[in-house]
Amino acid sequence: MGRHIDFYFDFASPYSYLASTQLPALAAGATVAHKPFRILELMKMVGNRPTTIESKVKGRYAGIDLGRWAARYGVKLQRNPHMRGFDFDALRRGTLVAIDLGRAQAYVDAVFHAVWAGERNLAEPPVLTALLDEAGFDGSALMARAAEPGYAARLDKETEAAAERGVFGAPTFFIGDEMFFGNDRLDFVAGALKTAA
Amino acid sequence: MGRHIDFYFDFASPYSYLASTQLPALAAGATVAHKPFRILELMKMVGNRPTTIESKVKGRYAGIDLGRWAARYGVKLQRNPHMRGFDFDALRRGTLVAIDLGRAQAYVDAVFHAVWAGERNLAEPPVLTALLDEAGFDGSALMARAAEPGYAARLDKETEAAAERGVFGAPTFFIGDEMFFGNDRLDFVAGALKTAA
Repeated sequence: MGRHIDFYFDFASPYSYLASTQLPALAAGATVAHKPFRILELMKMVGNRPTTIESKVKGRYAGIDLGRWAARYGVKLQRNPHMRGFDFDALRRGTLVAIDLGRAQAYVDAVFHAVWAGERNLAEPPVLTALLDEAGFDGSALMARAAEPGYAARLDKETEAAAERGVFGAPTFFIGDEMFFGNDRLDFVAGALKTAA
Repeated sequence: MGRHIDFYFDFASPYSYLASTQLPALAAGATVAHKPFRILELMKMVGNRPTTIESKVKGRYAGIDLGRWAARYGVKLQRNPHMRGFDFDALRRGTLVAIDLGRAQAYVDAVFHAVWAGERNLAEPPVLTALLDEAGFDGSALMARAAEPGYAARLDKETEAAAERGVFGAPTFFIGDEMFFGNDRLDFVAGALKTAA
C-alpha cells in the first residue's frame, strides 16, 4: 500500500480552506481521502468548543492570523459576503456524491474557493449548479443526488466516525494512525508522509 | 528604539515552556520583556476556555503534539510528577521579583525547566529555594519578597493588562502592536522581528 492521507475538513472552516490550497502539492505522489463532517456537531460530541466564535478577542486575532497564512501561501482569503445564507449541509453531502463519482478533489477545490475566496451567492441553486458545471460536473444532477436521504445518513455516520477516531476540529489529517490537527501542522504532516513512504 | 519582544506566558502552560526554550536564540539581539499572568483567570475574562482540559480527546492529542514539538526542538518535556501541589501563583509572583532584580530570564528558565522537564518537588520551600540558589538568586529572600502583598496586586494588574491588550492564552508574543499566539507561531514572530529591525 502506497502513501495515503485522510483529510478531515469542513467548508465552514477557513483553516480547512487554507490547508486545502496546500494539500495537492504536499500530497504529490500520495492518495488523499476527503472526509467531510459537521464540525460544530462533532465538537459538541467530543466536548470541544468553538472558542474562536465564543471569544471576541480570540475571533479578532484569528482574522489576523488567517490573513498571515494566506499571505504566506500566496492565496486569496476573503469571506464570501453571502456565507450566512449557505446550506453547508448540502455542500457537505455534495462532497460525498463527488467521492462516489471519483472526483472529490475537483469538487472540494471549487467549493472551498467559492466560499473563502469568491463572491458568488451559493444560496441560489442556479449559481451553485453553475459553479459545479464549471468544475466539470453536472451540477444540478449532483445536487439533486446530494438531497437524497441516504447522503444525510452517510454524513451522520462520517461525523460519528470522525469523533470516534479522535477528531475534535478541522482540518485534521491522518497518516496511518498518526493524527495531526490544524493548518499549522502541515509541516509535520509532510514529515510523517516522508517516513511513511 | 531597538528590536523588542513582549513574551506573555504562564508556568502552567507546556506550550509556553516549549516557546521559552527557543526564545533566547530567536530573540538574539532583541530585548525581551517577560510578562507573567494568571492564565485561567485571563481566559475567563475574555470568554476563552481551556478546551485542552475540558475535552478528553483534545487533551490526549495535545500530549502527542507536545512530544512532537519537544522532539523537533531537541528539548526534554516531562511533566513534573509533583506538579499538582505547586503554588503557581507564588512562581508567577517570583517572576515579578526577578524582573525587579533585572534577572527575569534566569528565573524563568530555571522554573520552566523544573516544572516541565524536572522531578523536584517545588511544593517544598527548601527545594524551591535551592533551585533558585542554583540559578544565582538568594532563593529564600526572593520567595519571601514574592509573598509581599504588593506582588499579588501587581500580578492582578498584569493579568488585567494582558486581557486589555488582546491576550487570550499563552504563550503570546508582541512585536510592537503585532500579536502572535502560540508556540507554533514562532516562525511568524521571527519574521516580524526581522522586518522590525
